[in-house]
Amino acid sequence: MSSQAAIEFANAHQKHYLQQLIEFLRIPSIGTSPAHRADMQRAAQWLANLMERIGLHSVQLIPTDLHPVVYGAWGSDEHEAPTLLIYGHYDVQPADPEEQWHTPPFEPTIQDGNVYARGASDDKGQLLTHLVAAEAYLRTSGKIPVNLKFFIEGQEECGSFGMEEVIQQHSDMLRCDAVVISDDSFWDAATPKITIGTRGLVYFEVDIQGPRHDLHSGTYGGAVHNPLQVAAEMIARLHDAQGRVAIPGFYEHVQPLSAEERHELEHIPFDEERFLHEEIGAPALWPGEVGYSLRERITARPTLEIHGIRGGFVQEGQKTVIPADATIKLSMRLVPDQDPLEIARLFEEHIRRITPPTVRVSVRLLSYAYPALVDRHAPAIQAAVEAYHLGFGSRPVFLRTGGTLPVVADFMRILQAPVVMMGFGLPDDNLHAPNEKLSVSQFFGGVRTAIHFMECMARQSTSP
Amino acid sequence: MSSQAAIEFANAHQKHYLQQLIEFLRIPSIGTSPAHRADMQRAAQWLANLMERIGLHSVQLIPTDLHPVVYGAWGSDEHEAPTLLIYGHYDVQPADPEEQWHTPPFEPTIQDGNVYARGASDDKGQLLTHLVAAEAYLRTSGKIPVNLKFFIEGQEECGSFGMEEVIQQHSDMLRCDAVVISDDSFWDAATPKITIGTRGLVYFEVDIQGPRHDLHSGTYGGAVHNPLQVAAEMIARLHDAQGRVAIPGFYEHVQPLSAEERHELEHIPFDEERFLHEEIGAPALWPGEVGYSLRERITARPTLEIHGIRGGFVQEGQKTVIPADATIKLSMRLVPDQDPLEIARLFEEHIRRITPPTVRVSVRLLSYAYPALVDRHAPAIQAAVEAYHLGFGSRPVFLRTGGTLPVVADFMRILQAPVVMMGFGLPDDNLHAPNEKLSVSQFFGGVRTAIHFMECMARQSTSP
Repeated sequence: MSSQAAIEFANAHQKHYLQQLIEFLRIPSIGTSPAHRADMQRAAQWLANLMERIGLHSVQLIPTDLHPVVYGAWGSDEHEAPTLLIYGHYDVQPADPEEQWHTPPFEPTIQDGNVYARGASDDKGQLLTHLVAAEAYLRTSGKIPVNLKFFIEGQEECGSFGMEEVIQQHSDMLRCDAVVISDDSFWDAATPKITIGTRGLVYFEVDIQGPRHDLHSGTYGGAVHNPLQVAAEMIARLHDAQGRVAIPGFYEHVQPLSAEERHELEHIPFDEERFLHEEIGAPALWPGEVGYSLRERITARPTLEIHGIRGGFVQEGQKTVIPADATIKLSMRLVPDQDPLEIARLFEEHIRRITPPTVRVSVRLLSYAYPALVDRHAPAIQAAVEAYHLGFGSRPVFLRTGGTLPVVADFMRILQAPVVMMGFGLPDDNLHAPNEKLSVSQFFGGVRTAIHFMECMARQSTSP
Repeated sequence: MSSQAAIEFANAHQKHYLQQLIEFLRIPSIGTSPAHRADMQRAAQWLANLMERIGLHSVQLIPTDLHPVVYGAWGSDEHEAPTLLIYGHYDVQPADPEEQWHTPPFEPTIQDGNVYARGASDDKGQLLTHLVAAEAYLRTSGKIPVNLKFFIEGQEECGSFGMEEVIQQHSDMLRCDAVVISDDSFWDAATPKITIGTRGLVYFEVDIQGPRHDLHSGTYGGAVHNPLQVAAEMIARLHDAQGRVAIPGFYEHVQPLSAEERHELEHIPFDEERFLHEEIGAPALWPGEVGYSLRERITARPTLEIHGIRGGFVQEGQKTVIPADATIKLSMRLVPDQDPLEIARLFEEHIRRITPPTVRVSVRLLSYAYPALVDRHAPAIQAAVEAYHLGFGSRPVFLRTGGTLPVVADFMRILQAPVVMMGFGLPDDNLHAPNEKLSVSQFFGGVRTAIHFMECMARQSTSP
């Protein structure tokens, strides 16, 4: 069995692959920092060199407005085998606050079975598992059971800015049967997780213009509808008393959770008390949208949040001003099958409806992203379930994330392929925080799983 | 008639008195600026010297935490005549933006019958009228028909900070039958105004603490009661649908307007369209508290205004944060007989009542001031009416101001004396703005009125 040989090869060369990971982690590829532009170029080139060395073809740096995408392929669309597009990112978060790191963020250190370094889990270590798997196949069998395409970007920590256009422009080259993303973590130390849903987003600024200029509350208090008061009154009308978003039509296309998914969610162990006290630290959880459990509300139901209210006087001390204007910054998380542009239209209509005649209001859509939901019965998802079982000895849970990954929806929409979000990190990997790490055993478990996944995918597609 | 002689004297020496005003205006006594401390001292000393020269006794600089109060007296409490305490302030606003002045702010210039200079109307010119009146009596009759006490402070533009303590400490010395303040303007060019009411103030900060730290709206949206959302919901519950302040008990001690006052207000010419378009510039006036006219609402009814809402993200661009906390800055204007500390207690109780269990809230009272209402039938007010008629040939209207003058309430409360707010400025004097001015004819009309007022006061108190 070729997967067995590949796994044995990877195991026999653990030292080499750890060394390779450490080399990659040493490059401070902070994509958001202009001071690290050369490091970004170095990291991209390092990946391209690795792809060449492994034996991929068509290796290239696809230029973007900022940092290039590294591309490389094996096999051909003409082969009968299915084609996987493996996505990852070589940019990392800034390391600050640096003084809170126990070891230097860009001098990778192995301690207690973990590699400590910025980017270890997010996403250099996770993306490398697939390259190690590919090499292990090629060094042992001379071939891989599937066609592979690697698409490793450098702007993920900037919100994958511009990736939609890149995918669109190269959609022929990127054609595939499934997209694989390993940029996620297990549910707990023993339980893998496959993320099957991401929320979309619409982000707005609502400007409320009242008087021509700021006014004195002594002279004008009682004659003027204070724009901050209007802002508060409008915000209070964006949710109803049952915690639902009060925009007419908002829920019309929301896909209800299947009985299967609700049942699953109920049975995944989840400690609300711990969640409240350790993660949130508020006096009580928000009862939120009536009729849905907490886990449903944070992943599978749409929400509306206020991010800021600008206007008037907020410094120390006192100023008795009636501000001329107020601005509300807010966003909504959307779920399948809400269309962000349709929701933007409904929101703007609702704002017009609740605007009093005492002010002028303008609504600006700052950005939007589509929600995504992967069919859990898709062959690629089933292959992932089997691969986890073979690679780690456990079956994964299916979960949706409450966050937004625009690139997932972009891949699904443009390439018409399912996205397999299979991560190898652990929940305590300190992503975006000091002392980020990746467990060495998770890394090699990930390599094993990636090897199995390729074989399972090949088998799935040839099974009747 | 001694008033006639005094008026003739003042008229004969107009040139001298204008020169004296110009000398006083030349001192840049900007009380809020540390760079002008020596000028403040110089202005106080200038006033003290003038008082000595006129022939006042007990002239002294009363020290405060910042700038001294200039005090001087004539006559004695043992005299049968009534005693007037004349209040004014020698500090002026900063002159900026200086480039918008047509003539230098501290080089007083006479043009088109006006003296242009910072402080001309607010308050150096107005306070001098009473000193000229006193001198005119003394130079012609050797005596004044009333006892006088001058109390000229240097912190009015800082909100008369600390004056309550000074008045309290010297309440014996300041004992009087009426306080006179000339720091106000006519209703229009032809109509004097006596201000009979000022609103009080309570200023609060309400802190709303939700989660322990800022949270990601993707991961936690749906589980957390967003403190900005809570702020908006609370603000929306501070007014009812009729535009009334919704704090239980808030209106309990509000003194209703007398039928006489309502009738008067209705008949003072007031152009709501001009007020809306030229002063406010909003699309429409706020209907406000149901059952009260616009003029009642901005002067004689209490109000509640939001000055700022701090928390979250308000810069350009987008951040999907659920803020850990939010702070509302707000104040209420109070009318007779609302007690600021009682209102503060009711407000805090209401906030407790409407605080959801998902957040912790704290209320901080930053400052407070009492409202004041002068009995229009008091002899001192009737004397002012007569004095205006004799000095300017017109009868004044009675109005309340929507603003807060803590010193007015302090004088009334501590000295138990009515306060006569009789101003000689005009509505277009550009107070606190570039090109502040005082009309020369208003200045000498003020001098005449001050001379008459002293005599009318003396007559009022001796009439049966």
